[in-house]
Amino acid sequence: MRAIFNEELQQVAEDLTSMAAAVHDAVEDAGRALFEGNIELAQDVIDGDAHIDALEHSINNQCVILLAKQSPVATDLRIVVSTMSIASLLERIGDLARHIAETARSTYPDSPLAPQVKDIFLQMQDFAEKTTSTLSDLMTSHDEKAAQRLILSDDTMDKLFESVYTIARSDEWTATTDQTIDSVLLSRYYERIGDHSVSIGRRLVYMVSGFDPSKDPSRFIGVDSDGD
Amino acid sequence: MRAIFNEELQQVAEDLTSMAAAVHDAVEDAGRALFEGNIELAQDVIDGDAHIDALEHSINNQCVILLAKQSPVATDLRIVVSTMSIASLLERIGDLARHIAETARSTYPDSPLAPQVKDIFLQMQDFAEKTTSTLSDLMTSHDEKAAQRLILSDDTMDKLFESVYTIARSDEWTATTDQTIDSVLLSRYYERIGDHSVSIGRRLVYMVSGFDPSKDPSRFIGVDSDGD
Repeated sequence: MRAIFNEELQQVAEDLTSMAAAVHDAVEDAGRALFEGNIELAQDVIDGDAHIDALEHSINNQCVILLAKQSPVATDLRIVVSTMSIASLLERIGDLARHIAETARSTYPDSPLAPQVKDIFLQMQDFAEKTTSTLSDLMTSHDEKAAQRLILSDDTMDKLFESVYTIARSDEWTATTDQTIDSVLLSRYYERIGDHSVSIGRRLVYMVSGFDPSKDPSRFIGVDSDGD
Repeated sequence: MRAIFNEELQQVAEDLTSMAAAVHDAVEDAGRALFEGNIELAQDVIDGDAHIDALEHSINNQCVILLAKQSPVATDLRIVVSTMSIASLLERIGDLARHIAETARSTYPDSPLAPQVKDIFLQMQDFAEKTTSTLSDLMTSHDEKAAQRLILSDDTMDKLFESVYTIARSDEWTATTDQTIDSVLLSRYYERIGDHSVSIGRRLVYMVSGFDPSKDPSRFIGVDSDGD
C-alpha cells in the first residue's frame, strides 16, 4: 500500500512539475507577445491555457483519489493538500498570462502599453519570469532557501504596480484612454502573478518543511489571503 | 466515530454559512460605501476583512483535521474538499469587497466612478449583492435549482464588464484619467466577484449532488478555471 502511495504521489509531483514549467513558458511567451508584438506567441499562450487547465484538473482528481484510497496523514496529507492549492494557484497564473496575451493580441500590431510606463512593465515581466522560473525549479529542488528568497521579494511587484498609478495619475500622463485602460488592466494582471507566485512559494515551504513562514498554517492550505 | 465526524462536519458547515453571510454583508456595505460615499461603511468593510480571512483559516484547519482524523471517503470526502474550495473563493470575494471599499475611501468625498458608467456599476453591484445573497442562503438550503439559476447567470457580469469598456473606449468618454483608472479597476473587481460567485454555485451543486454542471468534476475541486 505504502509503495503504491509513493508511486501515485510521485506521479502527481511530476504533473505539478510539468504544470509549473508550462506556466513559466506561458508567462515568458506572454511577455514576448506583449513587448515584441509577437502575435503568433500571443495565440500560442491563449491556445495553450487549455493544457494548463487540464493539468490542474488531472492533479486535483489524482489528489482526491489519493485522499479517498490512501487516507494519508501527517506529512503525506500536507503534501496532497498543498499540491491541490499550488495547482490551483498555478492555474490562475496561467489565466493571467493568457489575459496578457489577449491584450497584446487585441491591439496588434500596436502595443497596448502607454510609452511612459513601458519600462515599469518590462521590470514586471522580468520579475514574473524570474519568479515562475524559480517556482518551476522549486517543484523538483524543494530548495527552501530559494523559496524563502521568493517570499521575501513579496513587495517587489506591488511597488512596480503602485508606480504605474503614480505616473498615470500625474499631470505628465499623456497616454490615450485605450492605453490607460490596457495599462491599468495589464498592471493588475502582473500584480496578481506576483502575489500568486509568492503564495506558491509559501505553500512550498509549508509542504516541504511543515514550517509556516507566516506562522499561520491555514494560509498554506487556503488560497492566498490577498488573492482575488 | 461516525457521530463525531457528523458533529465536526456540522461545525464546519456552520462556519461556512457564517462566512458566506459575512461576505454578503461586505459586498453590500462596499456598494453603499461606493455609491453613497459612506466612509464609515468603507472602513467597516476594510476592517472586517480580517474576520473573513480568519473564518477561512479556521474552516481550512478544521477540514484538514477532519481529513487526518476521520479519513472520509465518497460523499463525506466530497463535502470536505468542496468546503475548502468554497471557503477560499468566499475569501477572495471578501478581498474584492475590501478593494471596492478602499477605492471608495481613496476618493472620498468624491465618487471614484466616471458618471457615464455609474448606471452600469449599479447593475454590477445589484448582481453582486443578489448572487452573494443567494450563496449565503444556499449554504443552508442546498437548493440545487437556485444554484443552477446562479450558474446560468454566468455571463451577466461579463456583459456589464464589457459594456464599461465599450463606453470608456468610445469618443463620448469624457472622464478624467483618475476616474478612468478607478472605473477600470472597479469593473475588474466586480467581474471577479461574479465569476467567483458562479464558481461557488458550481461547487455547491457538486458538493450536494455529486453532479457536475460542467461535466468536469475537477472544476469543483480546484479554484475556478477562469480565476485569477
